[in-house]
Amino acid sequence: MNNLFSDRIADVPRSFIREILKVAIDPSVISFAGGLPNRNLFPVAELKAAANRVFDTAGREALQYANSEGFAELREYISGRYREKQGLEIPADNILITNGSQQGLDLLGKIFLNQGNDVIIEEPGYLGAIQAFSVYRARFNPVPVSDDGMETERLKEVLAKRAPKLMYLVPNFQNPSGITYTARNREAVAELVRGRNILVVEDDPYRELRFTGTHKQSFGRLLPEHTILLGSFSKIIAPGLRLGWIAAPARIMPKLIVAKQASDLHSNHFAQRLIHQYLTDNDIDRHIENIVRVYDRQRQAMVRGIEKYLPPTVAHTHPEGGMFIWLTLPPGASSMRLFDLAIQDKVAFVPGNPFYVDRLETDTLRLNFSCVDEETIEIGMQRLGRAVEKLLDQVGGQ
Amino acid sequence: MNNLFSDRIADVPRSFIREILKVAIDPSVISFAGGLPNRNLFPVAELKAAANRVFDTAGREALQYANSEGFAELREYISGRYREKQGLEIPADNILITNGSQQGLDLLGKIFLNQGNDVIIEEPGYLGAIQAFSVYRARFNPVPVSDDGMETERLKEVLAKRAPKLMYLVPNFQNPSGITYTARNREAVAELVRGRNILVVEDDPYRELRFTGTHKQSFGRLLPEHTILLGSFSKIIAPGLRLGWIAAPARIMPKLIVAKQASDLHSNHFAQRLIHQYLTDNDIDRHIENIVRVYDRQRQAMVRGIEKYLPPTVAHTHPEGGMFIWLTLPPGASSMRLFDLAIQDKVAFVPGNPFYVDRLETDTLRLNFSCVDEETIEIGMQRLGRAVEKLLDQVGGQ
Repeated sequence: MNNLFSDRIADVPRSFIREILKVAIDPSVISFAGGLPNRNLFPVAELKAAANRVFDTAGREALQYANSEGFAELREYISGRYREKQGLEIPADNILITNGSQQGLDLLGKIFLNQGNDVIIEEPGYLGAIQAFSVYRARFNPVPVSDDGMETERLKEVLAKRAPKLMYLVPNFQNPSGITYTARNREAVAELVRGRNILVVEDDPYRELRFTGTHKQSFGRLLPEHTILLGSFSKIIAPGLRLGWIAAPARIMPKLIVAKQASDLHSNHFAQRLIHQYLTDNDIDRHIENIVRVYDRQRQAMVRGIEKYLPPTVAHTHPEGGMFIWLTLPPGASSMRLFDLAIQDKVAFVPGNPFYVDRLETDTLRLNFSCVDEETIEIGMQRLGRAVEKLLDQVGGQ
Repeated sequence: MNNLFSDRIADVPRSFIREILKVAIDPSVISFAGGLPNRNLFPVAELKAAANRVFDTAGREALQYANSEGFAELREYISGRYREKQGLEIPADNILITNGSQQGLDLLGKIFLNQGNDVIIEEPGYLGAIQAFSVYRARFNPVPVSDDGMETERLKEVLAKRAPKLMYLVPNFQNPSGITYTARNREAVAELVRGRNILVVEDDPYRELRFTGTHKQSFGRLLPEHTILLGSFSKIIAPGLRLGWIAAPARIMPKLIVAKQASDLHSNHFAQRLIHQYLTDNDIDRHIENIVRVYDRQRQAMVRGIEKYLPPTVAHTHPEGGMFIWLTLPPGASSMRLFDLAIQDKVAFVPGNPFYVDRLETDTLRLNFSCVDEETIEIGMQRLGRAVEKLLDQVGGQ
């Protein structure tokens, strides 16, 4: 039989991270490569109790087909939390439950993107968004992000020459870089977008994992009519349950619901009730405080390791929350080459390449600190230091 | 802001059934409109026990991110069951876990369909498939099905003038009609497809729900290199867990996995382990026998009701399994008009319209017998009989 595949699927990058994680499965390798929350912090006992309660009080209901929008009480909960935590007025009717934020990205691609439509993404940017929008054959317009947020001069240039439909941002503790947009940067970005025919997609899975500093305003506040919010329970409860949500202006909801129906009818109904029961019976804020305490210690251990074992010519970001630190090697040093050396020294990370749409070689890399304890971070950073030393010797010696 | 929606989403029909179900929510209405399995048969206690076991033995694991293909042991189980029940050799590597069959349809659309590509569907056909493939802007080529299966003369004509990529079939107890392709019809369809560059998508959620007659061979047997199988736990365990699968030839799997990654990373990991634990600890065949016993009695009650309360000018199918019976009214009688009359008489069904791609008026309708007990079926059919009488009086009086 001949090739019957669609044109679109040829364009989608396979997850490079997946491939790397295969290498990192060797238990003697210390992995800073994952993007996983720390499994030791999952509230297993509490979720078990909540599951029993759902089976006992609404078992048949929870196991039956349900509506595409999602479990009403869970949508109400999310709406209430936006009000309480961010002062955002988002009615439950404007919230659709999805299979993690990733499905939110797929649904947005489905309902907005024709082939060749322009999308603004961050550089470096979240690989999952690049994958999801590639399926709909978007044309990507990367705008660099650095310590303060998005480079507004570059954004201005893109807006002058293109008419992007979507602008995808992770303003808090960005994946992969760990940076957070300052209040001032958010205002400047909003100012450039205001009045234009663009939707800002604010993906915000890490917001609640803030270690230091103060919460910044969501684009949902700055540009309410332009902003679609993506949220997730993956980082604050557990990712294996695959539950997230889209909060969108009312005019967008009917199309999102049709797309959700066509994609998988609805999200796991039992899991929706399970999470809602867990949230009802437990103090999620206390649970989050606990996650924050652990991740913050691990971040500090990683920063100490960077300062202790890496030469000062390696730059790093200063995340105020989240799960990632981003390193920039001296000019000319390849992070792919470093990866090969680091694996020999039994430590793994993700080279920067997959977070760009158009680069085969980069001098950047992502380190994850959420999954590894402080002691192991110390050992891993020491190994990474050795690998960097070898790499720079080679570069210097060329 | 101006309209930013994609062209594709404008083409997707909203679920008509959804709208109808809203009307049928009134508890005084007897509903034959749903497509739901009977919630009274869900193995709630067994699933609760299995859930506790998963929390106790693999809680952290089950709550963590997992691979896109699905839980290995569940894929092995499905592979083993294909071997045991159908003599099909499908390695676990060729099985991808999805969020119900509906997501299987979405993934197939993603990886195969360019805009305007031809797809063969059954007429009447499954609404969910029409929705899913509409997203990818397929051109539909409906081929009628009747008591014996697909009309091969019509199929021959379509194959002569088009080059369809996909051919979507529900050969067992079809939704909506309840018909099953005979062995002879399957051979004839396979013969027409053999040697052509077409993939047969065999959607088979009801196969195990056979009341009478003997199992027929899957297209996976007749055309192994051409056939993609879709399966689901929704009808034999519970739909709220949203788990199904695609079994596809090896050459197709890498693209399916990329599409799954881009769509939602992976299916609910906890639910996959839960279902696997349930299958390990329980005798699913005995559970299925129980479902079959109940549905068969309800089907018989519905057939008795048809014979007792409907005029002989109303034709009906004779399902050997599944959940649906299909009625054809006398020529000129509108099932939409009948729906309005029936709702006044407090009984609901789904008019035929949404099961065709190109008809606003039909003389056909779908009755579901899985969700209503025998006594209620008797009362509901009596009500439907009155509504049909009124309709035919009006038609006759025009």
